[in-house]
Amino acid sequence: MTLTAPEAPRSPEQRAPGRPRSSRADEAIIEATLDLLAEGMSIESLTIEAIAARAGVGKATIYRRWAGKETLLRDALLRLKAPPADPDTGSVREDLLTLARSIARNRDPRAAQIMPCLVPEAMRSPEQYERYQQIVEPRRQVMRQVLRRGVERGELRADLDIELTLLMVTGPVLMQRMLHWSPKLDNDAVPDQVIDMVMKAIKA
Amino acid sequence: MTLTAPEAPRSPEQRAPGRPRSSRADEAIIEATLDLLAEGMSIESLTIEAIAARAGVGKATIYRRWAGKETLLRDALLRLKAPPADPDTGSVREDLLTLARSIARNRDPRAAQIMPCLVPEAMRSPEQYERYQQIVEPRRQVMRQVLRRGVERGELRADLDIELTLLMVTGPVLMQRMLHWSPKLDNDAVPDQVIDMVMKAIKA
Repeated sequence: MTLTAPEAPRSPEQRAPGRPRSSRADEAIIEATLDLLAEGMSIESLTIEAIAARAGVGKATIYRRWAGKETLLRDALLRLKAPPADPDTGSVREDLLTLARSIARNRDPRAAQIMPCLVPEAMRSPEQYERYQQIVEPRRQVMRQVLRRGVERGELRADLDIELTLLMVTGPVLMQRMLHWSPKLDNDAVPDQVIDMVMKAIKA
Repeated sequence: MTLTAPEAPRSPEQRAPGRPRSSRADEAIIEATLDLLAEGMSIESLTIEAIAARAGVGKATIYRRWAGKETLLRDALLRLKAPPADPDTGSVREDLLTLARSIARNRDPRAAQIMPCLVPEAMRSPEQYERYQQIVEPRRQVMRQVLRRGVERGELRADLDIELTLLMVTGPVLMQRMLHWSPKLDNDAVPDQVIDMVMKAIKA
């Protein structure tokens, strides 16, 4: 299911027949899921019942859209971590700065409660690993696109290892943001510092 | 308490009077602590009683050496993650390769069970953050020394940001080893690839 921005409420004349409030209900369901997680409910204890109650819908409404908890959870987390658009500023350095800054800064304040638990959770089981991979893959795709464009435009080395570069940008930014790994570095300055260092290694 | 290699058992004539088996008991206590953790006991449920029973000593023996669970735990984990010696091969690149490879490869197989839990645990409370910092700080000191030497010898840039470089090496290596962050990279090749890329950014 592709997530899009919430639709503005439609007037009765505009609603498609037979589906009067489906998108508002879907929004409420996604929001309820994220709220419950952000408030501290673990993924394990999250239930369709609790989400339905919080969203003020019946369970049947949820099951009309999602096969079950896993697919709803995936969509809620994809919404939370929806990738930024490809900045395409004309400068690969500026593009990477934008993406690095967004790795650990989230518009949605709930992400700060939810995401730090996903990384360690990803180590616990293949299912949780897959869930984490599904969430981060759209963001990696955007960064791959930025890097490939940099190579095509001659800004970056022709022999650039794109997958390694993704790790070189994300690893340090995540470790500092999630863990405050280095007490001596300024969390807010780290994304820029990381890109400055990576650019020295990857520019043509 | 500084941890050193276990002492060879001493003959009765050689033992200092009044302390016949203290170092063998200490070893057994440290080993019991690490064994219990590696077998899956959480740090929270670890008790002096359980360690004493496993080590075959009385609780009083433990309390003669350690104030309590926290200091014993710290020493056990420091033993597990004792930093490699400064390689000082003559080449900063070779030194960094040795250190990067050791970040995530442990001679002690128990580390693979215990360390992945410490990183996420470090996010949960200030005490656990401090514990993690105490464990990694000796290793960071060795890498700082290697980098400073590289700057002094003119192998590395004079304006090198040493703390950032520590993060640039450790972040990617840890994320790949703990989480298999990138499914497309070969875990065993990553430390070398990371150093190759970092060297491009930091060499003079």
